[in-house]
Amino acid sequence: MKRKVGIIGTGHVGSDVAFSLVTQGICEKIVLIDKKETKALSEALELRDMSSMTHSYTEIIPNDFSALSDADIIVMAIGPETLLREDRMEELIETSKAVTEIVPKILATGFDGVFINITNPCDVITSLIQKISGFNHSRVFGTGTSLDTARMRRVVGEALHIHPKSIDGYVLGEHGESQFVAWSTVKIGGMAITDYNTDKPLDLPALKDAVRGAGWNILTGKGWTSFGIATATAQIIDAALSDAKQVFPLAVFSEKMKIYIGQPAVIGRKGITSILEPPLTNEEQLSFESSANIIRNAVNLF
Amino acid sequence: MKRKVGIIGTGHVGSDVAFSLVTQGICEKIVLIDKKETKALSEALELRDMSSMTHSYTEIIPNDFSALSDADIIVMAIGPETLLREDRMEELIETSKAVTEIVPKILATGFDGVFINITNPCDVITSLIQKISGFNHSRVFGTGTSLDTARMRRVVGEALHIHPKSIDGYVLGEHGESQFVAWSTVKIGGMAITDYNTDKPLDLPALKDAVRGAGWNILTGKGWTSFGIATATAQIIDAALSDAKQVFPLAVFSEKMKIYIGQPAVIGRKGITSILEPPLTNEEQLSFESSANIIRNAVNLF
Amino acid sequence: MKRKVGIIGTGHVGSDVAFSLVTQGICEKIVLIDKKETKALSEALELRDMSSMTHSYTEIIPNDFSALSDADIIVMAIGPETLLREDRMEELIETSKAVTEIVPKILATGFDGVFINITNPCDVITSLIQKISGFNHSRVFGTGTSLDTARMRRVVGEALHIHPKSIDGYVLGEHGESQFVAWSTVKIGGMAITDYNTDKPLDLPALKDAVRGAGWNILTGKGWTSFGIATATAQIIDAALSDAKQVFPLAVFSEKMKIYIGQPAVIGRKGITSILEPPLTNEEQLSFESSANIIRNAVNLF
Amino acid sequence: MKRKVGIIGTGHVGSDVAFSLVTQGICEKIVLIDKKETKALSEALELRDMSSMTHSYTEIIPNDFSALSDADIIVMAIGPETLLREDRMEELIETSKAVTEIVPKILATGFDGVFINITNPCDVITSLIQKISGFNHSRVFGTGTSLDTARMRRVVGEALHIHPKSIDGYVLGEHGESQFVAWSTVKIGGMAITDYNTDKPLDLPALKDAVRGAGWNILTGKGWTSFGIATATAQIIDAALSDAKQVFPLAVFSEKMKIYIGQPAVIGRKGITSILEPPLTNEEQLSFESSANIIRNAVNLF
Repeated sequence: MKRKVGIIGTGHVGSDVAFSLVTQGICEKIVLIDKKETKALSEALELRDMSSMTHSYTEIIPNDFSALSDADIIVMAIGPETLLREDRMEELIETSKAVTEIVPKILATGFDGVFINITNPCDVITSLIQKISGFNHSRVFGTGTSLDTARMRRVVGEALHIHPKSIDGYVLGEHGESQFVAWSTVKIGGMAITDYNTDKPLDLPALKDAVRGAGWNILTGKGWTSFGIATATAQIIDAALSDAKQVFPLAVFSEKMKIYIGQPAVIGRKGITSILEPPLTNEEQLSFESSANIIRNAVNLF
Repeated sequence: MKRKVGIIGTGHVGSDVAFSLVTQGICEKIVLIDKKETKALSEALELRDMSSMTHSYTEIIPNDFSALSDADIIVMAIGPETLLREDRMEELIETSKAVTEIVPKILATGFDGVFINITNPCDVITSLIQKISGFNHSRVFGTGTSLDTARMRRVVGEALHIHPKSIDGYVLGEHGESQFVAWSTVKIGGMAITDYNTDKPLDLPALKDAVRGAGWNILTGKGWTSFGIATATAQIIDAALSDAKQVFPLAVFSEKMKIYIGQPAVIGRKGITSILEPPLTNEEQLSFESSANIIRNAVNLF
Repeated sequence: MKRKVGIIGTGHVGSDVAFSLVTQGICEKIVLIDKKETKALSEALELRDMSSMTHSYTEIIPNDFSALSDADIIVMAIGPETLLREDRMEELIETSKAVTEIVPKILATGFDGVFINITNPCDVITSLIQKISGFNHSRVFGTGTSLDTARMRRVVGEALHIHPKSIDGYVLGEHGESQFVAWSTVKIGGMAITDYNTDKPLDLPALKDAVRGAGWNILTGKGWTSFGIATATAQIIDAALSDAKQVFPLAVFSEKMKIYIGQPAVIGRKGITSILEPPLTNEEQLSFESSANIIRNAVNLF
Repeated sequence: MKRKVGIIGTGHVGSDVAFSLVTQGICEKIVLIDKKETKALSEALELRDMSSMTHSYTEIIPNDFSALSDADIIVMAIGPETLLREDRMEELIETSKAVTEIVPKILATGFDGVFINITNPCDVITSLIQKISGFNHSRVFGTGTSLDTARMRRVVGEALHIHPKSIDGYVLGEHGESQFVAWSTVKIGGMAITDYNTDKPLDLPALKDAVRGAGWNILTGKGWTSFGIATATAQIIDAALSDAKQVFPLAVFSEKMKIYIGQPAVIGRKGITSILEPPLTNEEQLSFESSANIIRNAVNLF
């Protein structure tokens, strides 16, 4: 059977998710939806122009809501009209409105798959999608701190001249300012930072700032961020479609905290199959709860 | 030894070339140059953020001219400040100025590889790069009608419900308005269009318009085109770096016509190893010469 | 939904098909069946050992007939007990017996997908599978002259120092001694051999011998052939699973000739969607009919 | 520049390493050497037959020692004449003799790259290659416990229904009977086994037996093992060629123990750049030393 992914929003992020999926041959069908139909159509033409040059074939279907009905996954990639907005609350008002309008239309198609949310503020919007859809929590999750974690792996890897693939561990909490690097989970080739010998000790606060500041640095130079999040999302989609039971840090619903928040979770075909709760230091636990409170306050606005 | 690609210009096209190279693991080092250094740096951060999520490792070096000295290939992807400009001449004035400034700086590094030009107007700018660099014609070529050919394969394939990979043939001439589909070269699963049975005959003029209009349709909806050309360029780079001797329609120097113009050519490690001259119908030959004249007139401005 | 492929026979060919599928991430589930259950189990363990090292996840299910029921494709890769047998008739007796036994067992699972046959003599065994299964001809086909065509492209490419990907055309007829290179279909970068300028003309009879002899040369040095056919089969499976409508030379049922024979055909999700009949020279047409007669005589034994 | 890999020995393992490299496009040139020249030639023909069907182009050079001179990496994949031998000492006598003969021939070509040894007994033969070549220890290493570690990740992953990619940790020591799973290094989605909640606790001794027994199970059903080790080797080669500084458990020279033994090490373009020494429990440390003694005794035979 064909693997089918719907993408709602074909701005920088949504279209780069599609570009990455097509380049890598991760699914056989992509449905592109945008309120600006000419935008979705343009992206579809671009992606189709690739078809004689990629390894596998991907069918691209623009502007057809009904084609979402049998999608395995729908990626929510609705961006704000105004990028580089400093006030997160304004962004929330705008994107929550868009999500509130579009989710019922998606449900009306009979869609019965998994929602993966990228739209910011990620944790809050993921929560909203779950509420509106009424889907089981396991079938609605957000990309959460997956990109932040990739950044941490990159930043630590660069500091130590080690491949980011050999750096493990998690950024936890909100995909936003209150996130934190759970240093106790970070491993270098499997070794705890405290066990790893380096010529000069790692400056963890500086590294943490580099992780959190990376998005802003990219924003100011480029105007938006998309390659990193698109690659992370493509990888998550690949894992979900192949029922891989792979672990990623995602915005998932914590039964303990009763909110969506970034923590490691296992992905399968039907969404989240379990959530991991790595032991944290007291300090990290406080950071986690503090981050949870920030998310909770925003969610309670709805 | 490492495969190293320099990219000059990190606008939509240049950065999507880099995104495609990194996603596919086509080279081990990429040097990003942009007159806006914060832009090149942002793209470098984006590409590095992918490093724990891609199959192979690619080192990204922003804003370091000297790192171009031992590049195998330099991709010229300088875009105009103003997109969607209707007057091609204005675009030529702007991009030719940029190329005239930057090529000597590249040569000063000792660069001794191959130039692949994407900057428009492609045929003219490719000619200019060769003139300024003094490189052998074989070591300077443009992406020419490679994207147009990919579009023709897509458009014909969609009309016949056949995979574009099973459609062969060429769009020849200028990468611009005077290009033409050389229908006598077009094959469907190896069969000439005249031999291929279809329920209703193909409307070739309409298909040609669809090919030539695709870029414009994408431009109006998206504001620029990048996925198609980025994918074509990545494929051409892959062929060059592996000395594949693969045939692509490119802006190459025709000894007969004494200009750069889109026609099929064989790519190896050191650039173009030979040019193919498929037999054309009289009408196609006239179109080819007419397109050549348009390029020649523009080149003669310099 | 998951893409699922069954492989019947885990000898060199069947297991290398699986190895190629897993390495490339072409499907999400593979069912391995062999009458020697320890062999299928061993191959499954080998393939599973790859799971932390490949890009995508593939579930491997050994020795479970019932798991074939919802497979999209079943690959028949039953090899003879004795390799390097000179007498093709003995091989036919052995493999036809094996196929006759196993196809009903496959049907009993409720399998309702597409059969791709590699088992030799390919054209005859493909015919037999169709007869036993009662499946529509479109849903049963063989790898036919796909590998022979890949060899022709390689042999011609090497002779001209051109990438085999830029050589098109077909080997037609029996996947066996009576096959022939349809030189009138062969194109070099889109050009007919007669139009392509070379320093010295191609020695077509010698090239044909190199194509047909390649299998034998590999057999005598290695004892079997598998990388080429496994790669061809993986590519065909990829095209089928993605409904690509791509053209491959395959053992397909010719309504004109009333036999299975190697000719270009379009593959989709449900098997063959159409057959191409490229115009042949008179000499080629005679070769094609002669090859058809040889297949017909063998088929008539059943 | 092209990436070039030499493979010495084109038995099951050596040829499957080549098959994996070509399928994945990991290098641009492969040199195949075998004392049976017809075997290397057959494998070369097989690999070349793939050239129109793979994504990237790989040149295959059989039986040309001189072509090794500028190889980046040489893979030693000499197998014993007799597979499934129970007596490891007989295997050592045979393979050490072969290595002793061939390494000087390789050095005579002027080869100045990195040796990656697969030939068993891996740790001892790696030591022998270093001794004969006189190369710096960093430029000679073996695949060591990389496959055993992949098996551990697979076995633990299957037990917990978690993707092996989300299982980290190491099998350490000899690539042989005295190897051990360093359970204190094993992480499930980043969590220590002791922290990971499961319905029923993992039976670690049984899992360890499954890891160590996997090779034997594969051997008895298939007669040899190759897919797993070929995939591991291809991944290691990819990391080395791209100077990735990635961590793999390999047979590397321990300055402390003065022998080659399986432990995590960082790979770059010029071989091993550093060795990691994860803290072990007392029991694990004893196992490690015990395994080291077994290797040391075998090495001292030379």
